[in-house]
Amino acid sequence: MREIGVGLLGLGNVGSGVVKLLHDNAAAIEARLGARVVVRKIAVQKAEKRRLVEVDKKLLTTDARAVIDDPGVEVIVELIGGEDPARALVLQAIASRRHVVTANKFLLAAHGDELFTAAERRGVDIYYEAAVCGGIPIIRALREGLASDRIEELYGIVNGTSNFILTEMAERGVAFADALRSAQEAGYAEADPALDVDGGDAQQKLAILMMLAFGSRIRLDDIYVEGIRALEPVDFSYADKFGYVVRPLVIARSHDDGLEGRVHPTMIPRRWLLASVTGVNNAVYVSSYALGHSMYYGRGAGMMPTAMAVVSDVIELSRNILGGVTGRLPLRSFRSLTDRPMRAPGALRCRYYLRFSVIDRPGVLAQLAGILGDHQISLRQVHQEGAEEPEKPVIVVMLTHIAAEAQVRAALAIIDNLPTVARKTCLIRLAD
Amino acid sequence: MREIGVGLLGLGNVGSGVVKLLHDNAAAIEARLGARVVVRKIAVQKAEKRRLVEVDKKLLTTDARAVIDDPGVEVIVELIGGEDPARALVLQAIASRRHVVTANKFLLAAHGDELFTAAERRGVDIYYEAAVCGGIPIIRALREGLASDRIEELYGIVNGTSNFILTEMAERGVAFADALRSAQEAGYAEADPALDVDGGDAQQKLAILMMLAFGSRIRLDDIYVEGIRALEPVDFSYADKFGYVVRPLVIARSHDDGLEGRVHPTMIPRRWLLASVTGVNNAVYVSSYALGHSMYYGRGAGMMPTAMAVVSDVIELSRNILGGVTGRLPLRSFRSLTDRPMRAPGALRCRYYLRFSVIDRPGVLAQLAGILGDHQISLRQVHQEGAEEPEKPVIVVMLTHIAAEAQVRAALAIIDNLPTVARKTCLIRLAD
Repeated sequence: MREIGVGLLGLGNVGSGVVKLLHDNAAAIEARLGARVVVRKIAVQKAEKRRLVEVDKKLLTTDARAVIDDPGVEVIVELIGGEDPARALVLQAIASRRHVVTANKFLLAAHGDELFTAAERRGVDIYYEAAVCGGIPIIRALREGLASDRIEELYGIVNGTSNFILTEMAERGVAFADALRSAQEAGYAEADPALDVDGGDAQQKLAILMMLAFGSRIRLDDIYVEGIRALEPVDFSYADKFGYVVRPLVIARSHDDGLEGRVHPTMIPRRWLLASVTGVNNAVYVSSYALGHSMYYGRGAGMMPTAMAVVSDVIELSRNILGGVTGRLPLRSFRSLTDRPMRAPGALRCRYYLRFSVIDRPGVLAQLAGILGDHQISLRQVHQEGAEEPEKPVIVVMLTHIAAEAQVRAALAIIDNLPTVARKTCLIRLAD
Repeated sequence: MREIGVGLLGLGNVGSGVVKLLHDNAAAIEARLGARVVVRKIAVQKAEKRRLVEVDKKLLTTDARAVIDDPGVEVIVELIGGEDPARALVLQAIASRRHVVTANKFLLAAHGDELFTAAERRGVDIYYEAAVCGGIPIIRALREGLASDRIEELYGIVNGTSNFILTEMAERGVAFADALRSAQEAGYAEADPALDVDGGDAQQKLAILMMLAFGSRIRLDDIYVEGIRALEPVDFSYADKFGYVVRPLVIARSHDDGLEGRVHPTMIPRRWLLASVTGVNNAVYVSSYALGHSMYYGRGAGMMPTAMAVVSDVIELSRNILGGVTGRLPLRSFRSLTDRPMRAPGALRCRYYLRFSVIDRPGVLAQLAGILGDHQISLRQVHQEGAEEPEKPVIVVMLTHIAAEAQVRAALAIIDNLPTVARKTCLIRLAD
């Protein structure tokens, strides 16, 4: 039987899942392909280390070039992550006419154009379903499934760690630090959780989704990012009282004058389908001209879900190899990308939830409302909690009507400097 | 610019949507393809008829062969539906080396093997995303997205008309006939609704989904089907009381000893994501070995959503044509299909909701419970409504523990013949 030789760069969590899945589903994969997918070499940092799966020690090497150059390797699976040495190795693989499957969202978001161009020149394929939302086939949905449609808007829960933390905070009423600890104990969060909870991971995924949805090159820095550290349990009770839930959303929109891309915790109506997406699950909700709305839901991270996306890419690539069609199908959804302008974050208009922490003195509420009014921010609801003792900070929560982000920021810059304001105001944008 | 010539067979609802979408999104489609997709000829039943879209009269012909044989046509889009003449025309198109895009679920469910084999022999492509769940890219998800996974179970809401009717009955408390009328008035149901409400449409779609999910040929008749006509408003109140909602589900499972496929109204827990899929929306929920669970949601019917799936297929096919790779990529998810045995419907084991209509006489409840007990059916809950007047039928509702379908059927055969039983018992299966 014909064999497709695969070389792995990295044998961590996902790499081990790839080895396991290729083993466990070998018969089904052969039935699909009429060929066998065989791992020929694996680059690791340390040859002597306890692994999550059993692998033949002879496959391991600390020399990544040896994997790329192995004459039996047709497909390189890059699972190192980050910029270096992943970028150089993928470029070397392409130069050596190896096809590439990668789960490296940073690499694609920051250097996608360079990689795709190199691959097209060399006539090799790059697949990257695992880079966004793990096992959910959202890349295929945008690249092929909705190829004839015009995507107008996209809402996504693309970081499972953040969604798990917000779900914990909402359901158990715990503080951010406690929920983060639970996530770490459950293996959902890294020791350094910054990339997840500060939004950087979601930003990289959104850049890839926007490229596919809008056919435009996207600079990472043009996507506005806000993490979830400022949220407190009280915000979830208020959200609930108002009929909302808080989700760590990525939001992208296409406007006549440019694209909009942002990452921040968002209050969404409880009846939205995305509101039912809890825990480590991911989902992307797409609004488009012809289809209307559609949603893609599943496990966005984890060893086996991510490995599933990687191996499905290996299968598709193997079909291309077996059909003799590699390098002849587009790697992106558009033949060439444009450079659409990006809207400034300040141009946003939406509703806002504002939680103020103020010293309970006469006239404080009037002062807040006055400053907001001066900035053309009108209020839909105001809640003030009774002070337990005078001169202690109390919580004032306001829901605004649609207001301009630039005005809201200007107003908060003044408010947060008032002597009666005890702490930085917490702002959550609404989507409805 | 290179042009891809398309011939349409049929210019009804979906055909008109295809013409409209190719026009409205022409620029974006060109940007994706680097080529123009042009409709060259359209076969219609009557040349003189008011159309939903404006089309050049010169394109219309009543001679379908003239569309297939037009030398400028590379892709035939079959939108006639049903068996004849669609089957003969698609086979002719394949014989004339035209690629095919079809939305014809019956054709694929009943004759898929014949069509795929013919296409493979002639080296042409067949795409059929629109045949199941309209615009939701579920075919691509199963064929490519989850290609490395092993699908264990699949729950789907694949008939929007039935889901609309059940949603209306639940939310407005109306009878089946009234909800059907609303569906017809809204344009969601045909004048003859049998194919939708009796489950035939869902049966055909499930056959295609099972072929893709399990790599097995599926005979339509092997899928158990029950429609939604027997449901009454009271069933929805009881479902709600028990924490369930009623959805028109297709269910497929892979067991060691065979496959299971069935179509029937089903009570599912309110917290399931599928429970939030209301109205004409469709969704398919997949459980698989590596990914765990995933769901694909959107509009499963209608002019533009279905046209979107058709045109996305045309785009993928055009990419194959432009890349010179037609006939070289697999049309099914598996290289060759197996013939896995199908489990008999009676082999099912699940929980049941039973609504009896009985004459309120002493001992009736004991009699029902006795017969069920004789068939090893044990009860979780029993509700009896107070009789308004003696000798008038009252409703007795029972939720069973897990029981054997064959036993439940045997018990109901006895019960429904009792003199104290006024009407046929309504049975709804539970999934939980």
